[in-house]
Amino acid sequence: MIVEILCIGEELLSGKTINSNSAYLSEKMENIGHEVLYHSVVGDNPKRIFECLDIALERADIILITGGLGPTDDDLTIETLAEYLGLTLIFHQSILDKIELIYKNTGRTATEMCKKQALIPQNATIISNNIGTAAGVLLEFKENKRLNKKYNSTKIIAAYPGVPYEMKDMWETQSEQFFKNKATNITIVKDLKFIGIPEAKLAEKVKDILQQENPTVAPYVSAGEVTLRIKSKAIYESEAQLLLNQTEEKILNKANEFYYGFNDNSLEEIIGNLLSKNNLTLSIAESCTGGLLSSKLTDVSGSSKYIFLNLVSYSNEAKKQMLGVKNETLEKYGAVSKETVTEMAQGIRKLANTDIGVAISGIAGPTGGTENKQVGLIYLAIEINNKIETYEIKISNKFNRIQIKERAAKQALNFLRKSILNYLG
Amino acid sequence: MIVEILCIGEELLSGKTINSNSAYLSEKMENIGHEVLYHSVVGDNPKRIFECLDIALERADIILITGGLGPTDDDLTIETLAEYLGLTLIFHQSILDKIELIYKNTGRTATEMCKKQALIPQNATIISNNIGTAAGVLLEFKENKRLNKKYNSTKIIAAYPGVPYEMKDMWETQSEQFFKNKATNITIVKDLKFIGIPEAKLAEKVKDILQQENPTVAPYVSAGEVTLRIKSKAIYESEAQLLLNQTEEKILNKANEFYYGFNDNSLEEIIGNLLSKNNLTLSIAESCTGGLLSSKLTDVSGSSKYIFLNLVSYSNEAKKQMLGVKNETLEKYGAVSKETVTEMAQGIRKLANTDIGVAISGIAGPTGGTENKQVGLIYLAIEINNKIETYEIKISNKFNRIQIKERAAKQALNFLRKSILNYLG
Repeated sequence: MIVEILCIGEELLSGKTINSNSAYLSEKMENIGHEVLYHSVVGDNPKRIFECLDIALERADIILITGGLGPTDDDLTIETLAEYLGLTLIFHQSILDKIELIYKNTGRTATEMCKKQALIPQNATIISNNIGTAAGVLLEFKENKRLNKKYNSTKIIAAYPGVPYEMKDMWETQSEQFFKNKATNITIVKDLKFIGIPEAKLAEKVKDILQQENPTVAPYVSAGEVTLRIKSKAIYESEAQLLLNQTEEKILNKANEFYYGFNDNSLEEIIGNLLSKNNLTLSIAESCTGGLLSSKLTDVSGSSKYIFLNLVSYSNEAKKQMLGVKNETLEKYGAVSKETVTEMAQGIRKLANTDIGVAISGIAGPTGGTENKQVGLIYLAIEINNKIETYEIKISNKFNRIQIKERAAKQALNFLRKSILNYLG
Repeated sequence: MIVEILCIGEELLSGKTINSNSAYLSEKMENIGHEVLYHSVVGDNPKRIFECLDIALERADIILITGGLGPTDDDLTIETLAEYLGLTLIFHQSILDKIELIYKNTGRTATEMCKKQALIPQNATIISNNIGTAAGVLLEFKENKRLNKKYNSTKIIAAYPGVPYEMKDMWETQSEQFFKNKATNITIVKDLKFIGIPEAKLAEKVKDILQQENPTVAPYVSAGEVTLRIKSKAIYESEAQLLLNQTEEKILNKANEFYYGFNDNSLEEIIGNLLSKNNLTLSIAESCTGGLLSSKLTDVSGSSKYIFLNLVSYSNEAKKQMLGVKNETLEKYGAVSKETVTEMAQGIRKLANTDIGVAISGIAGPTGGTENKQVGLIYLAIEINNKIETYEIKISNKFNRIQIKERAAKQALNFLRKSILNYLG
């Protein structure tokens, strides 16, 4: 079915809040086989909301609304929706009881204003909010009583709060299966994640597969990574799954060396699993990334099992005193060199007494670059099983300092993942 | 004037790309005094783009378009726009020359396809792209030749590429002043940034000021911070500035203790400036934040002037061996305690030989919490001028591990900022 996402809220029109809800709901709807053709954003203004509903009901079958479900006078979504469709608002004591409980549990008293959030249009299904006070509504209808108008197909409107984590919880627990059942086909989606190859080169490698009709394969780029999204459709799930598996195999046959994981997998999590399962421990000495690599690796719950001590050795003094980097090495090759990161990796591994030692040094910019060593030049060393591997990484200096740090950390994680896999054989 | 932002691109409708362009352009237009009332997103489909232009020209004076200016067959914005308005496309050799130069400089050869990007509708002003190949266009018109229709006011359409940094550069260099001149009033905007106080409490403090009409003041929340945006309008700039200054003073009189900076100021940058100017040096020992605090502080260019060595002491062993934390302290009070962070801060300051030592330890979750020490409990110690200050920070355990790390690091930066200011007197 054709979908429009309609987000209601001044904070979106002022640009202070980036509209992540539209992206979330679009992805979910597309992944279960509906076709999202429009996004709209409008303020908390009944006249303009009416106009947007006119337009959306003309061009879409399903309208997903977010925002404007709060208790204040500015929150108008539910009453405007009821008025638009000519529906009476009905007071639900059970919703008010829940709201009062939430207030009580957070040491506040529910005010008169809260009663508003217990009003739901007649015929609507309530979408319960398990986190906050704003309940959502689901409406299915073939006609508009106020306009005395019959639509040419059944229309569905679902309204959610604008708070992303409340909306997401409501979607997952109460809406996803409902909208899945409304789709004609079963759709299965899998994201294959690649790193270390530019989008254009990866697209070239899988050129013929990108032309396929079912499953479709589409490339997406994000900071230093490329994702290929496979979307497979069929009447039966088993058939959709089979088609997807075949396409996945074709892709991996052509680009396996750059593949690192799928869907929500992150490099730090994959590394964490490898280390945990094999009882390996890790230590890191960072210069240019300033702690970012360590922070990413400790984003993984349970990382204290394999990380004990990391170091940010920003100055040459720290590299010498803490890690035993030789003065001659620094003088002859500089802090940004294969030789220095080699000694740093050996130094941190010895200091922390771990199986693996990693060191990174480079020029994050905007200053510090020279003709020979430009901004974006990074050296990485990994000592594993008493063997040192070093890598030169070049990141485009069109990126700013923070972007260079991010890309350097990601590439380092990928080389580390590969080294561990290699070592494990 | 009334503005609609129309973004064109399948990657937005699939949800893979979050629409940050709409937020950027909205903020810019609102800040110079225009009124953004609508956002729309549609795919690269001429029929649907036509429909969206119909709607937008009905309800807005200015339409800012992003996306669909690339060289591929899917990029249809310019030709669709020309067709919609009944304008001829004119080939510009100067644009093609520039495109060919960009290709040459990056070691590629411009293909036949690139010629498309040198086609510009008649009467359009070119918005030059100083970074990529896709030129933008600006059109001002009172009638639509194809529809043989006269509009009731002058309409303006500007089209930019979808690549955010190209669009932003083009906005700044060629569009901002143009649209400023189109606004009736001078508008001046200033963001005041607060930390350490929840939105509701800050709003309560400045309740009467939030009711004002000009300048308006609106609160915005982001990870652990609150911003008050002052927007002042007048016919003359001096008057708008005076009004803004008066409101700023009123706000700071009521909430100065939580104020830390304005507009693009970040805590790490403010701290960096304080350290640089006063020749102070800093070292950090982190446990729960795992390197994030160090990474944030080294996001500032020139931070190598005051940071030499930071430590991520994740294990108790590392705290003891590297920082000299006493075994009794760890046994009696635990790793997450005022006593332990105190010894960590003293230890890192001595080890790195800096003026200031900072240490942080806490429970980032989701595991590791106990009844007495719940997930989100953080201890911070700052040693400055041989004086130790300790802080207990409680972060709601509704946040996930990554969010708790982020909020803990931000609060730590704020306490550090205050300590340095206190010390400097």
